[in-house]
Amino acid sequence: MSDDVTGDVSAGMEPDTTTTGLHDVLRAATAAADLAAESDPGTRARWLRAVADALDAAAPVLVPLARRESRLPDARLAGELARTTAQLRLFASVALEGSCLEATIDHPDPEGVPPVPDLRRMLVPLGVVAVFAASNFPFAFSVAGGDTASALAVGNAVVVKAYPGHLELSRATAEVVVSALDAAGAPSGLFAVVEGFDTGVALVEHPAVRAVGFTGSVPGGRALFDRAARRPDPIPFHGELGSLNPVVVTRGALSARGPELAAGLAASFTLGAGQFCTKPGLVAVPASSEFDAALVAAVPEQAAPMLTPGIRAGFAARAAQVLAVAGVRVLTGRPPAGSGGDDGPVLPLVVEADVATVLGATDMLLEEAFGPLTVLVRYADEGELAALVAALPGSLTATIHAEGDEDVDGLVRACRAVAGRVLFEGWPTGVAVSWAQHHGGPYPATTSQHTSVGATATRRWLRPVAYQDAPQHRLPPPLRDHDPWGVVRRVDGVLQVPAANGGDAAPGAAG
Amino acid sequence: MSDDVTGDVSAGMEPDTTTTGLHDVLRAATAAADLAAESDPGTRARWLRAVADALDAAAPVLVPLARRESRLPDARLAGELARTTAQLRLFASVALEGSCLEATIDHPDPEGVPPVPDLRRMLVPLGVVAVFAASNFPFAFSVAGGDTASALAVGNAVVVKAYPGHLELSRATAEVVVSALDAAGAPSGLFAVVEGFDTGVALVEHPAVRAVGFTGSVPGGRALFDRAARRPDPIPFHGELGSLNPVVVTRGALSARGPELAAGLAASFTLGAGQFCTKPGLVAVPASSEFDAALVAAVPEQAAPMLTPGIRAGFAARAAQVLAVAGVRVLTGRPPAGSGGDDGPVLPLVVEADVATVLGATDMLLEEAFGPLTVLVRYADEGELAALVAALPGSLTATIHAEGDEDVDGLVRACRAVAGRVLFEGWPTGVAVSWAQHHGGPYPATTSQHTSVGATATRRWLRPVAYQDAPQHRLPPPLRDHDPWGVVRRVDGVLQVPAANGGDAAPGAAG
Repeated sequence: MSDDVTGDVSAGMEPDTTTTGLHDVLRAATAAADLAAESDPGTRARWLRAVADALDAAAPVLVPLARRESRLPDARLAGELARTTAQLRLFASVALEGSCLEATIDHPDPEGVPPVPDLRRMLVPLGVVAVFAASNFPFAFSVAGGDTASALAVGNAVVVKAYPGHLELSRATAEVVVSALDAAGAPSGLFAVVEGFDTGVALVEHPAVRAVGFTGSVPGGRALFDRAARRPDPIPFHGELGSLNPVVVTRGALSARGPELAAGLAASFTLGAGQFCTKPGLVAVPASSEFDAALVAAVPEQAAPMLTPGIRAGFAARAAQVLAVAGVRVLTGRPPAGSGGDDGPVLPLVVEADVATVLGATDMLLEEAFGPLTVLVRYADEGELAALVAALPGSLTATIHAEGDEDVDGLVRACRAVAGRVLFEGWPTGVAVSWAQHHGGPYPATTSQHTSVGATATRRWLRPVAYQDAPQHRLPPPLRDHDPWGVVRRVDGVLQVPAANGGDAAPGAAG
Repeated sequence: MSDDVTGDVSAGMEPDTTTTGLHDVLRAATAAADLAAESDPGTRARWLRAVADALDAAAPVLVPLARRESRLPDARLAGELARTTAQLRLFASVALEGSCLEATIDHPDPEGVPPVPDLRRMLVPLGVVAVFAASNFPFAFSVAGGDTASALAVGNAVVVKAYPGHLELSRATAEVVVSALDAAGAPSGLFAVVEGFDTGVALVEHPAVRAVGFTGSVPGGRALFDRAARRPDPIPFHGELGSLNPVVVTRGALSARGPELAAGLAASFTLGAGQFCTKPGLVAVPASSEFDAALVAAVPEQAAPMLTPGIRAGFAARAAQVLAVAGVRVLTGRPPAGSGGDDGPVLPLVVEADVATVLGATDMLLEEAFGPLTVLVRYADEGELAALVAALPGSLTATIHAEGDEDVDGLVRACRAVAGRVLFEGWPTGVAVSWAQHHGGPYPATTSQHTSVGATATRRWLRPVAYQDAPQHRLPPPLRDHDPWGVVRRVDGVLQVPAANGGDAAPGAAG
């Protein structure tokens, strides 16, 4: 998603955590990470559930704070907080199930080529993880969001760089999290929030930080990615940057349910004033006056406020860029006035263009616009559609609306090539939190081969370690012959799922 | 491991695959990757086994070629080839077992927060993968080595940049691989070898290449890592660069079995003329005349040839650097003459220094020496040992020789912090190929959160994709309700292991 990293948030404009403060935070986080790495999954699950319960209890304080700073409506924010605490509880169960640790035991095999010694492998936490909070989900992708939850679940310490657009909420959330962790007996310093642009840069470059999770704009994310890669010791940078989220409506789907699709699109691209990383930003759809009329009728006539003045200014500038492309026409709505520091609410905007216009405009119509704007691209035939899809940048999602009897195999393959989630019904703006979710995609959608939402998000904060010929008492618990943690393990190549996790393996026995 | 990327292999000194040639290779590889992505695991297993059989059959041709170019002995090379084909067959079984695909099905849950649609996730191949062959394992880490096998196993195309020190072998191996793949019906262009320094750089920067596997020196690997990170669309660079592989001998182990440890060390650091990425390069051991005498007696008096003139020159220069550090003394052996283009065999070299010398010499004694050199570091007490271990760079391995009743918990933790494999007996130079192996470690050992040896090496060449509300006939086979591939799957959070893979789930049913 795009935010205002290059807008109103830049060097010298955010009050920074002091250098001494950052040093102290990271020293405490390092010590806490050493202790957390030794903790068992039951303990970590307890920490996460304590945080979830405390955040739920604090909703009456946190939601109004979030409303004031983000200008998002109460109902949305209350729902987002519930999603955030459900996410913390999901990661508690992920920690307990334990297959995220990939515990693996190979007994010695003298016949192997080369011979196999006693080898036991598992994933261990990286240590201190830096998390950059996003602008647009003040709960779910911020202080106690998915990055924080997934990193804590597998034994890391977390230092969050607060998003400057909701600092009071960040501080209040951090207080709730720190108190809950303290009360649950977690190591002091396991979690902290820091502030300021320069502090963020210092975090990415600090030797104590072992990985970064980031949700934000392409320019801001790429700048930090570059710093992570240029370190003397490069560290993993799991960044979610920008996403166009293309939608394809086939001729068959348009005939069968054009007005219904128009209504769905109108609701999706205007959700949260278009400030979703999964907002559908480009819709390939044949020309249809029926579809257009339904869309114009369905797009809300009410203007909505944007998250910050900087984000609003960025949206106004981006809308002006789009409208400046020759061949782009407005279907409904109007661009926000961009000058004079206007910070008023903005109207949704739908524009249209043909495929040749899109492909001829360098990438001007293929970049994300962070706000309530979508581009309808009128394709004349399958050849034009294929050329358009082949030119699309990497996205978090691609959506295909087709009829069951249409041959869209090539289209599905082409969409999968440019996206991390392929939808066949509905709209991309809902992101469920579950085992099978993937929130990521080819660059610039993410810089990672891993997801930032869903159970497997833990893999970003782990690295493998193998123990060779270790005496039992030197091994971490889940690698001992009898595993007191009872996690899913692979023994001599075969997965063993304990009964508590839905399988039939005897608990903890390395058969 | 270190090789001669900065020595005799540099811009303009290797004959390059032509630009047109590279273009054609990558065009064919891209088309083949599209087909391979649709192949089923049984087909890919058949390809890998065909390659393994063909390489075994070609041993009488390949081993003498390898001997002539690498100067390694026949027995070692024949064993390495057997390991290489065993590795190809392991990855065939990894593909068939299929848990590497992480197939995951979440049925709809309207009670979820937010509600969960029908979500089905699996890992899909990245496309075209570039592999940089290593100097020191002309079979196992070269043309048909672990990177190639693991990438093909999960449906990628592979383009190998040949190591210039064994070009004839590389061409001959490539012929065997390509013929075997053709005969097995694999898509044309699925595998190719290219040559030349500039070609390697062009590969890393080419838009068609989606990931890189590299085994080589720190300077060469870092230069290519930087190029991969600076691309308009950065790609994953899974590099194995350099490793010190520290060994700690406790006072207890020294008393109990000093001479035996000395003999083991002598065999390990001289194996393959010290040209192993896991060669023990630093040994923390208390002063002991008994140990020293046994070591001096056990170190071979016979000189061995090194892989290439460039590698030999690099070793001579590195040995001279080590000996130039004030406080470093020779225990046995002598450094090779470095000047005048001498390319003769080299003697093993053991030097010693105290902890203060090592810590005071910036990193001069903490970098890998690629050749038969190891540094004994004499520690006086536990405090000195702890300070030494805390200063160690990232390594592939760390080895602890201790008695069962000694308290080494802190030492084990400290070793795990700097290494990917922790050994408690034996020596690090053997790298078994199995499910629980991990070959990787904190930078500069590797640039990756994944292994380059063992079953999980496949994860480097895969990315997740989720399908939302897809009709059955639009889904890849392993995500359909009835999975014709019969792979391990997670359904509604529970792992299901089919009987063919050692479990009890009904084959292919999504319960």
